[in-house]
Amino acid sequence: MSNQNPICNLLNIDYPIIQAGMAGSTTPELVAAISNEGGLGTIGAGYMNHEQLLTEINEVHQLTQNSFAVNLFVPEHPDVDESAIKLMQSILEPYYSKYNLNVPDIKSHTYESFEQMIDIIIEKHVPIVSFTFGIPDNKMISKLQSNDIKVIGSAASVEEAFLCEQAKMDAVVIQGYEAGGHRANFKTTNNIGLFALIPQVADVINIPIIAAGGIMDHRGINAALALGASGVQMGTAFLTSKESKAPVIHKEAIFNASETDTVLTKAISGKEARGIKNLLISQLEKFNDDILPYPYQNDLTSSLRKQAALHYQVEDLHLWCGQAPRLAKNNTAKEIFSEIIKNVSAY
Amino acid sequence: MSNQNPICNLLNIDYPIIQAGMAGSTTPELVAAISNEGGLGTIGAGYMNHEQLLTEINEVHQLTQNSFAVNLFVPEHPDVDESAIKLMQSILEPYYSKYNLNVPDIKSHTYESFEQMIDIIIEKHVPIVSFTFGIPDNKMISKLQSNDIKVIGSAASVEEAFLCEQAKMDAVVIQGYEAGGHRANFKTTNNIGLFALIPQVADVINIPIIAAGGIMDHRGINAALALGASGVQMGTAFLTSKESKAPVIHKEAIFNASETDTVLTKAISGKEARGIKNLLISQLEKFNDDILPYPYQNDLTSSLRKQAALHYQVEDLHLWCGQAPRLAKNNTAKEIFSEIIKNVSAY
Repeated sequence: MSNQNPICNLLNIDYPIIQAGMAGSTTPELVAAISNEGGLGTIGAGYMNHEQLLTEINEVHQLTQNSFAVNLFVPEHPDVDESAIKLMQSILEPYYSKYNLNVPDIKSHTYESFEQMIDIIIEKHVPIVSFTFGIPDNKMISKLQSNDIKVIGSAASVEEAFLCEQAKMDAVVIQGYEAGGHRANFKTTNNIGLFALIPQVADVINIPIIAAGGIMDHRGINAALALGASGVQMGTAFLTSKESKAPVIHKEAIFNASETDTVLTKAISGKEARGIKNLLISQLEKFNDDILPYPYQNDLTSSLRKQAALHYQVEDLHLWCGQAPRLAKNNTAKEIFSEIIKNVSAY
Repeated sequence: MSNQNPICNLLNIDYPIIQAGMAGSTTPELVAAISNEGGLGTIGAGYMNHEQLLTEINEVHQLTQNSFAVNLFVPEHPDVDESAIKLMQSILEPYYSKYNLNVPDIKSHTYESFEQMIDIIIEKHVPIVSFTFGIPDNKMISKLQSNDIKVIGSAASVEEAFLCEQAKMDAVVIQGYEAGGHRANFKTTNNIGLFALIPQVADVINIPIIAAGGIMDHRGINAALALGASGVQMGTAFLTSKESKAPVIHKEAIFNASETDTVLTKAISGKEARGIKNLLISQLEKFNDDILPYPYQNDLTSSLRKQAALHYQVEDLHLWCGQAPRLAKNNTAKEIFSEIIKNVSAY
């Protein structure tokens, strides 16, 4: 049946199911498990350095012969002044003290470093790369494609999907309002529910559409295909798998959550993201006007969140989660994947 | 095929497609057109008085032999003090002047009057009644059911859907974040996208589910059924029909809108609703803290909005619309309906 499906053809997979590149939570074991089952595993490399990326790619190559992807964040460099950074550092001081951390500084996020990530991907023959938070320059896209690497974009509106098509990307993930983790928006700001988004995008663009947001089982996949998508991307569904390295307290928070427990917030990273509401969000949202733009806010909160995970402090952690936590499963990735495809209609 | 579908069986219709009870925009011609095509037309009686309701029911009875519904708003009486009313009246004064209107007062919305609407529905043998903004008391529900009238509730979360089931309602409309017009929430506040909402509700309740929000054509219907709904309710799709009495400038605004043009606002009626953003919304949102609770804010803005429609002032009108305006059609209700069912899969 994969012969009929443009996503299966394009990505050389058996089922049009992509494991989202959840930065910080994927492991080579998770990526390989999904790819070995006939889906597309994705290394979430958004926060990785060159060494980490290289190591992870090598490990995935050892664990699967099948197609897999790397997900990267297109770098952003918004203006921010020193006093704003100092102010946020002082707001976060109680957390640094609590976890005996040095006050972190903002990091350098250069395009050169980003280009070197691309070179590693080409060198190691990763078959697919997906981009979030924007569209890389034409040169980079054609460099990847001339090396026989497929390029997937991310969009949250018709306009953004159209821009991905215009940039000659091979396929596009369209992200609904329901999605957990960071919003993919890079041009438009409103968040559109998948029911409305998929058919409106499908009527405008011709490259294959991968739907993302709140999809947790075969029902969501069948619905996405009915609306005009060719495949789906699932994050939360695989975040709770045994192979994901999301902290146990994060997984447990998802298992205990209901559909009304998540919120969209910029407080944690500086970019809007959906997670289960906890004290970290409500405390930081008191200083909403002082939140730094992404990636700087993220730079200042990442060390404290790492420590919070180590100390089982669920109230100080990012708890990324889509709007369907009631459907989350405490299983291996292979079990979750098998359960899904057992019930998917023909596509 | 209707024999297989619980919504078709329950409501005695051929297709599980309900025209939403869009208060202020339905006409007997619209209701009858949908019912004559085998769907369920709905008189949007939320703002009607007894006489208007009686007249509309009589007219629908003359235009169709088929099943149809009346939609009512369960009345609410939040506390509000005289000074808050005066303040909002003064904020709205420029609009009253612009349209030569007397300053309106808030209206009385009694439960007694609501009970009399129910008596009219029973007397005139309306086969189905749907409720929005809450659950009426047990006595009213059983009175309707003992008169062989089916009762449909409205919910926007798993908890609310469960409460409708516990109240012994016959079916429930579950409204996604995508939906145009007023939010149905009466207990929970977060808005959930349909992709996430339908399957989570379907796993918990046993009464048939009617999905609403951003559904405009066969693709949305097929998707809703795949996710676990038994039928759909469509508002915006029929609001732009020739038979709807939504002002022409409202219909044109929908035809010209994209998926990113709608917002949720309390500014117009005091209750959160989705519409195309215009000056009325952005002006009133400057006074967000002074917006009266529903129905009082609505009482103070309805006359100016009526005049705005008469004077083709699209910036002073409520422009209720779901998140899929690109899919709206400028056709008769019969044409829109026929186009939809031509492509719906078996259910």
